[in-house]
Amino acid sequence: MEKNEDDLTKEEDSQIQKGTTRRGFLSTMAKIAAGAGLIGSGAGIEALSGCAKAPTGTATVSAAVAKAIVPPGKWDKYMGFWSAGPSGEVRVKGIPSMKTLLRIPVFNNDTGRGYGGPSGDDQSAKMLEDAGGYIEGDTHHPHISYANGDFDGRYCFINDKSAGRIARIRLDYFQTDAITALPNVSAVHGLCVQRYPKTGYVFAASEFEVPMPNDGRDIVPTGNNAAQTKNYWTLLSAVDGETMAVKWQVMVDGNQDNMTTDYKGLYVAATCYNADKGWDVSTMTKPPVMWAVFVNIQRVEAAIKAGKYKTIGKSSVPVLDGRHGSDLTAYIPVEKDPHGISPTPDGKYFVANGKLAPKVTVIDLEKVGQVFEKKLKPKDAVAAILTVGVGPLHTVYDGRGNAYTTLFVDSQMVKWNIEDAIKAYNGDKKVKPIVQKLDVQYQPGHNAATQSDTNHPTGEWLVSLNKFSKDRFLPVGPRFPENDQLIDISGHKMVLVSDNPVYIEPHQATIALADRIKYVKKTYDPKYFANHIAAGTEGVKRIGPHRVIVRLTGVAPILTPVYFHVKEGDLVTVIYSNNDTVENLAHGFNMTMHGKNVNIDPGETKEVTFTADRAGVYWYYCTIFCHALHLEMRGRMIVEKVPGYRSRPIKPNRLSGKPSLHERFKDFPEVGKA
Amino acid sequence: MEKNEDDLTKEEDSQIQKGTTRRGFLSTMAKIAAGAGLIGSGAGIEALSGCAKAPTGTATVSAAVAKAIVPPGKWDKYMGFWSAGPSGEVRVKGIPSMKTLLRIPVFNNDTGRGYGGPSGDDQSAKMLEDAGGYIEGDTHHPHISYANGDFDGRYCFINDKSAGRIARIRLDYFQTDAITALPNVSAVHGLCVQRYPKTGYVFAASEFEVPMPNDGRDIVPTGNNAAQTKNYWTLLSAVDGETMAVKWQVMVDGNQDNMTTDYKGLYVAATCYNADKGWDVSTMTKPPVMWAVFVNIQRVEAAIKAGKYKTIGKSSVPVLDGRHGSDLTAYIPVEKDPHGISPTPDGKYFVANGKLAPKVTVIDLEKVGQVFEKKLKPKDAVAAILTVGVGPLHTVYDGRGNAYTTLFVDSQMVKWNIEDAIKAYNGDKKVKPIVQKLDVQYQPGHNAATQSDTNHPTGEWLVSLNKFSKDRFLPVGPRFPENDQLIDISGHKMVLVSDNPVYIEPHQATIALADRIKYVKKTYDPKYFANHIAAGTEGVKRIGPHRVIVRLTGVAPILTPVYFHVKEGDLVTVIYSNNDTVENLAHGFNMTMHGKNVNIDPGETKEVTFTADRAGVYWYYCTIFCHALHLEMRGRMIVEKVPGYRSRPIKPNRLSGKPSLHERFKDFPEVGKA
Ligand SMILES: [Cu+2]
Ligand SMILES: [Cu+2]
Repeated sequence: MEKNEDDLTKEEDSQIQKGTTRRGFLSTMAKIAAGAGLIGSGAGIEALSGCAKAPTGTATVSAAVAKAIVPPGKWDKYMGFWSAGPSGEVRVKGIPSMKTLLRIPVFNNDTGRGYGGPSGDDQSAKMLEDAGGYIEGDTHHPHISYANGDFDGRYCFINDKSAGRIARIRLDYFQTDAITALPNVSAVHGLCVQRYPKTGYVFAASEFEVPMPNDGRDIVPTGNNAAQTKNYWTLLSAVDGETMAVKWQVMVDGNQDNMTTDYKGLYVAATCYNADKGWDVSTMTKPPVMWAVFVNIQRVEAAIKAGKYKTIGKSSVPVLDGRHGSDLTAYIPVEKDPHGISPTPDGKYFVANGKLAPKVTVIDLEKVGQVFEKKLKPKDAVAAILTVGVGPLHTVYDGRGNAYTTLFVDSQMVKWNIEDAIKAYNGDKKVKPIVQKLDVQYQPGHNAATQSDTNHPTGEWLVSLNKFSKDRFLPVGPRFPENDQLIDISGHKMVLVSDNPVYIEPHQATIALADRIKYVKKTYDPKYFANHIAAGTEGVKRIGPHRVIVRLTGVAPILTPVYFHVKEGDLVTVIYSNNDTVENLAHGFNMTMHGKNVNIDPGETKEVTFTADRAGVYWYYCTIFCHALHLEMRGRMIVEKVPGYRSRPIKPNRLSGKPSLHERFKDFPEVGKA
Repeated sequence: MEKNEDDLTKEEDSQIQKGTTRRGFLSTMAKIAAGAGLIGSGAGIEALSGCAKAPTGTATVSAAVAKAIVPPGKWDKYMGFWSAGPSGEVRVKGIPSMKTLLRIPVFNNDTGRGYGGPSGDDQSAKMLEDAGGYIEGDTHHPHISYANGDFDGRYCFINDKSAGRIARIRLDYFQTDAITALPNVSAVHGLCVQRYPKTGYVFAASEFEVPMPNDGRDIVPTGNNAAQTKNYWTLLSAVDGETMAVKWQVMVDGNQDNMTTDYKGLYVAATCYNADKGWDVSTMTKPPVMWAVFVNIQRVEAAIKAGKYKTIGKSSVPVLDGRHGSDLTAYIPVEKDPHGISPTPDGKYFVANGKLAPKVTVIDLEKVGQVFEKKLKPKDAVAAILTVGVGPLHTVYDGRGNAYTTLFVDSQMVKWNIEDAIKAYNGDKKVKPIVQKLDVQYQPGHNAATQSDTNHPTGEWLVSLNKFSKDRFLPVGPRFPENDQLIDISGHKMVLVSDNPVYIEPHQATIALADRIKYVKKTYDPKYFANHIAAGTEGVKRIGPHRVIVRLTGVAPILTPVYFHVKEGDLVTVIYSNNDTVENLAHGFNMTMHGKNVNIDPGETKEVTFTADRAGVYWYYCTIFCHALHLEMRGRMIVEKVPGYRSRPIKPNRLSGKPSLHERFKDFPEVGKA
């Protein structure tokens, strides 16, 4: 019998009521089950229908928990991009499953992928070398590229705080393809991108003030350090997202923290938490009011056209003066010391979060325009100040007029209504802007909501990126995971759904509807690789007295050539083309005893260079399980002795069979003995 | 009203029946919900009780799915240790949540933790340098240490296939504390540990045959390579798990693959897949029958006492001859080419998996004893051969007499009964040893079951480590995740519960009851660090013309000292003590523009050394969000100019604002344009 919607609703209601009735006795069941470690009662699980030994029955869980289950073979509705702090990668997660789909190496040495660092392929290592020469980077703020205020899914941009760099990830291949090392700055914290009409600009905010140029000329060996910082400056940098070239930099007052852009392409704004440029904790937190500095993009472009800029030191990048008094910038006061800043999806406001003040400041963007036109004073652009709780850091949105702010100190997520906050600020005593406060575990930094970073938020899921997990997970030593908590925000009240452990040290996440990431390729087209090796053209070629090129192909499970000869001291470049064309049929190439490993996906070509520094036989082998005969997918580099060549010595430890010890543990009691 | 167990059962039954009744109309609901991306119908989710907008209702899911939900704040019952292939780390996961709790860097450069490689701390970098000098390693087989056949939870051991190394992880601090570089071998595939009376020995099987010594003396520049391999050999190595010193090596025939030990401390056995020592795919797969080579541990120890060993080349480690004809070894024939080998929990059998033959071979360990005593021929130790399906690789157990074997080619998990297999092999035509075949997605390599590696298996959960995920997850480019599938094995039939994406390239996992991992520390005790810096003893000391030691402490949010002066060209060592004592209160130390980052957990001390290679002001800062004033937790290294010092040049890219490009992508069409 077909049922209509009314019938369904009635039947549901009846079920829910029964569910409520069942709850009492099922809590007893839950206790029994908990003893067997089968189930807990914390979340939304109301019951388990027995049958621990025969999992053929059913169980009742809360609708929020059920909604978050992505069954085997089904896809997540959303794709999120997570930064990873000094782990240097970008992580791709499915939401609501919260499972990590991929790590994308950016500012790190990924030995598995063969990216960067001593073990990686030549091209990625060169990209990092040219971009400052540092492998390690501290990733903070991932942002997907935009068209008309929503994600266009072409790129993901990410900054390296520690060496002032910006990287771009192609979202067809999910690989880093460009890194820009910003001139004149030491470290960049905030990153954001132009949302309208498109990306467009990628902006970076330098946090740590430094002398300009920072080449030691101003350093007084015995000088007063407090005073020195007064001559340090920060820049807000604009990079062209298409060419990744730095277009301009604007010098601003104070240091800069987080930043954002509007939905009309007019402004980029950064918060400032250390307006007086202090140099220790006490001097950095002194100023009672700080600001969000707004940069007027059109005015900057006009000023550059008019030649109103300088360059600093040896850099050729235009630098404009946007310090107090400039008509390129507006300094809107916000309480103290503002941290996150983000645009409401309707495009009307920026919300800046107080950090040391328990308040969020709502800035009216139309009024900011009037500030730039000198029709209003900066403070008049403030549409509301709302007390939300202690330690507000970041705010995201559901598209239904509500904002969700993390409270670091209170360990809470506070939901509040934007228009109600404005009414209350304007004297309406009847409205209660705070909708709900939800405890999170613990100390949230950033938060992220589905499509919240666009003008099309979906208001479905919210993730609280908590910096502390404390007691939430099985203990794994002094290095605790962080805790990303998934919260259902589809209803009036937030509902905590799941805790998810996270490795060092994501700062921000941005979550897109998966259909926004639409250019994904599943294999590489060999025709785009200038160095692709076609079947039949493999071989070994000596191109110099100590220089050998090996042209190698893999087609599961065959490696060609399956052996090659070189001489001690040869610098060897292996060019490896994976000539399999089947999706997911990756190979690895590992040269044993030479510290080199790369992953080569179908259709891909990679190069890896090393010195054959010791005579002997060294097998190279496939490190990705590709075929039933994967283990047989190996070959030999045969290194001939060269009289007089001083080969890489074998470590004494290896000859004696003694271990190499992690010295830090040498005085520690044996495990289990302390 | 209190209900008794009978009442509960009746009420459950009635609920389940209602659930069944509800299923029909709720499938309509599910279709509606699926359209909104809320839910899929593949797994065990039978229904969602509506209320997409108000998640206050309940939903019905299968009991297996419900069992696997670990609600917020609850702990997983099991802790698993996963290898990571060339990613070089060990991953700690909670089961059944399948969530990654921690990455433990071993053979890699973890920029976040500050481990190994160019960005890491001095001590871990030295450990890797002394253990061969290679950062990258290909981790394959994690094993927890044992006492009396069950996990004692002191250590986890892991091998590096690519450079023949074994590492030990302390399971109090979850940190790598020793790495042993094996002499005389090139690469080791299998790793296993002694189970009884304790660990005891850690064993490693060398896979790739090489000349011994492998120093180029035998290489014929224009020689016949096929013939050359006949003079290559492999060794089975034994390392003392307490001292991590290599005790002995046994030369065996063929190459070795996977390996295992028994529950009586008598044997270590390795499978062999390339008995004739072929050198390409066709010659490697020729021999129709291979073997599992058993090494008699007591006989080896006696032979060493009797001085019956040699050494190879410059190595001082005893090497014994265990090739065919030796009384140290027994070669038990198995079909072809055997891959995984594992002991049944009752201690009676080893099961070897055929890989190229669709069969598993059950070896009777008591009869192996009789083979050693020459009372039986090697082939008579075979208790059963069972045809299970195509591509059997690894077998695990539930402790109820059943075995679970991965079928790589068939993409299935096959459950079979061990005693029934023996009966059938002995002619009983009534028994049907195969219990069930479950499709997995796709191409499983290893599998792991709860406590299966011990004499106390719990038979609760099984994980299939599938090498291919193909269509199972949101597409993320040509680098597909692998797929760990969680399977409920508590009942008669296996039930697939969840798909879990995994990054490059775990080989094996071992899963312990979490209570077995019992020595976990949550902070470090500073007294064990010889270099710990007590409050008040911070400072900067020049100890040479170009050598500076900085003694630094962090107590959130204060860094001491908050600035220090050095001169261009100084080699600077920063010793950093995290003097916070609160669990989870970690700090990071990042020296901007110097490529260095370390993580320092509460009570921990780390050292990091770099050259101050350019005059200027460089902030160092905390990279772990530790406090509301975390951003203010920073200080300055002020590098004074030294006339004549040739400072590290600034890259031209940084001066011009031009990007550094990943050359491989230079000819690729723009994202979205192809
Ligand atoms: Cu392969
Ligand atoms: Cu800190």
